[in-house]
Amino acid sequence: MDILQYQSDFLSYLASNKIIREPKNLYEPIDYILQIGGKRIRPVLTLIASDVFSGDYTKAMPAALAVEVFHNFTLVHDDIMDDAPLRRGNQTVHEKWDINRGILSGDAMLILAYQYFENYNPIVFQKLAQLFSKTALEVCDGQQLDVDFETRNDVTIKEYIKMITLKTSVLVAAALKMGAIVAETEEEQAQHLYNYGLNLGIAFQLQDDYLDTFGNPDTFGKQVGGDIIENKKTFLYLKALEVANEDDKEKLHALYNENQENISAKINTVSAIFSANKIPNYTHELIEFYTNKAFESLTPLNISDTAKKGLRLFGENLMCRKV
Amino acid sequence: MDILQYQSDFLSYLASNKIIREPKNLYEPIDYILQIGGKRIRPVLTLIASDVFSGDYTKAMPAALAVEVFHNFTLVHDDIMDDAPLRRGNQTVHEKWDINRGILSGDAMLILAYQYFENYNPIVFQKLAQLFSKTALEVCDGQQLDVDFETRNDVTIKEYIKMITLKTSVLVAAALKMGAIVAETEEEQAQHLYNYGLNLGIAFQLQDDYLDTFGNPDTFGKQVGGDIIENKKTFLYLKALEVANEDDKEKLHALYNENQENISAKINTVSAIFSANKIPNYTHELIEFYTNKAFESLTPLNISDTAKKGLRLFGENLMCRKV
Repeated sequence: MDILQYQSDFLSYLASNKIIREPKNLYEPIDYILQIGGKRIRPVLTLIASDVFSGDYTKAMPAALAVEVFHNFTLVHDDIMDDAPLRRGNQTVHEKWDINRGILSGDAMLILAYQYFENYNPIVFQKLAQLFSKTALEVCDGQQLDVDFETRNDVTIKEYIKMITLKTSVLVAAALKMGAIVAETEEEQAQHLYNYGLNLGIAFQLQDDYLDTFGNPDTFGKQVGGDIIENKKTFLYLKALEVANEDDKEKLHALYNENQENISAKINTVSAIFSANKIPNYTHELIEFYTNKAFESLTPLNISDTAKKGLRLFGENLMCRKV
Repeated sequence: MDILQYQSDFLSYLASNKIIREPKNLYEPIDYILQIGGKRIRPVLTLIASDVFSGDYTKAMPAALAVEVFHNFTLVHDDIMDDAPLRRGNQTVHEKWDINRGILSGDAMLILAYQYFENYNPIVFQKLAQLFSKTALEVCDGQQLDVDFETRNDVTIKEYIKMITLKTSVLVAAALKMGAIVAETEEEQAQHLYNYGLNLGIAFQLQDDYLDTFGNPDTFGKQVGGDIIENKKTFLYLKALEVANEDDKEKLHALYNENQENISAKINTVSAIFSANKIPNYTHELIEFYTNKAFESLTPLNISDTAKKGLRLFGENLMCRKV
C-alpha cells in the first residue's frame, strides 16, 4: 500500500481524462476546480480499498475519479451557499466567474461523476450508482442541516455529529466501499470498510473544524476563522457552551448572534474563549475516540495484516495533519 | 393510447411517491415545484413509448417520474440563473425561499431522478442511467449556450436551433427512448422514436418562444415578454434581424443592447416589429417543418397504425396549444 503512488497515479489519470468539451464557459470552471489541488484523499481511499481486496487498484480509477469530481461539485455549490471567497488558497469558482457559472458547472460535475461508472459492467455499475446516489443525497441532507444550524440556537453536539456524518463522513465511507465494489468483495466485508471510513470521516471533520480556528493561515488553504465568521455551530462552539462559565457563554452567544463590525476581533475573542476553556483538548479527545472506533472496524476484515497496518497508518497520518 | 389516462395515472403515481424526508427545508421546495403542475408532457411521452412497444405503460412509471423530476430540477436552477419570478403562475423556488434553497433542492432532485431507475434490473438500469447522463449533460450544455447567447450579437439561426435542441429537445427525445428501453425494444426502433422526439421538441420550443411573446398572459403561466426582457436571441429575434429593414434592425439592436427603463414599452415595440415583419408566420412555418420531420420518423416504426396515428395526433395537439 503506497499512498504516494496512488496519489501520483490518480493525478496522471486525472490529467489524461481532462474534460475537453464545448461550451467552453461550462467546462472551464470544472477543469479549474479539479486542477487546483487538494489532497485527493477520497479517490486515494477508493484505490486503497480496491487494492487491499483484489491486489489491483488501476481498475478503480474511474470510480475514484467519480468520487473526486463529486467532491469538487459539492465544494463549488457549498462555496456559493457559504459565500466563500477562497478554496485551497485560490478563488472559488463563483468568485472567479459568477454564481451562474458555479451553479451550472456544478450540475455538470454531478452528472459527469455518474458517467465514470459507465466503465464498469452492469452489475458493478448499478451497485456503484446506487451507493453513489444514496451518499450524494445524504451529503445534500448534511449541507441543508449545516445551513439550518446557522440560524438555530439549540443545536446539540449529537445533532452536530449527525450533520458532519452526512456532510462529510458518508462520502469518505462510500469512497472506500466503492473500491470494495469494484474489487467485487462480498457485501459484509465492504460494509466493515464503510464503517472504518464513516468514523474516520467524523474524526477528519472534527480535525478540520479545529484547524479552521487554530490552523496555520499560511498553509490552511481556506480562510482561518471562516467558521467563526459564519457563526457555524461546530463542536468547538457547542462544547464551549457546555463547559464555559456563564460569562464566557454570554460572550459567545452575543458574538454569534449579534452583527460584528470587527471580524478579526471576533475571531480573536472567540478563539481565546475556546483556548481558555480547553476546547482544543476536548476536540483532540473526540478525534481520538472516532479514530479508534474506525480502527475497530479493521479487525473483522479478511485482508493481510500488512494491509490492515496500512489502513491504520493512513488514519493516523490523516489525524496528525497540521494543514 | 389515452393521453388523459396516462396523465391522470402519472399524477396518482406522483402523489403516492411524495418525497417525505428530512431535513424539511431541503425537501419542501421539491414537493412544491413538483405539485404546482405543468402539463407533464415528458413523463407522458415515456409512458406512451412503453405502451406502444410493450402494451404496458405502468412499468415505465419510475422512469417517467425520473424524467419529470429531472425536468423540474432544470426549471429550479434555470429560474435562479434567469432571475425569473414566476413559474407556472406561481413563485419560483428561489423567490419563495432563497437562492441557496433553490441550488440545494435542485441538486437533490437531480440525484433523486437517478434513484428512480433503481426500480429496474441492472441491464435496463444501466441503459436508462447512461441515456439519462448523456441527456442531462446536453441539457447543461444547452443552458450554457443560452446564457452565452445573451451577451453575443452574432448568434445565427443554426446556432439557435442547436441550442434549443440541447436545452429542450434531447430531453423530449430521451423521455420517449426511456419508455422504449423499459419496454426492452431493440435499439434501432428506440432510436427512431428518439428522432421523432428530437424534432418534435424543436417544434415545441419554437412554439414556446412564439407564446412567450404572443401568448395569452392570463394562461401562459410564465411572464409574457420574458424573453424580450432578458434579451434572448430567440428565432423570432434572429429572423427579424434577417428580414427586417435597416430601420427596424437598428431599433431591435438598440432595444436588446441598451438598458431600457420602460420594460412594457420595450415589449410592445419589439412585438410590433416582429408582427410588422411577419415573424409569427415564419415561426409557424418552421414549427410545421420540424413537426413534419418528426412525423417522418414514425414511418419505420414496427408498431400498429393506431399507435402511429396516436403519436401523430399527440404531436399535432402539442403544436396547436395556445398556452
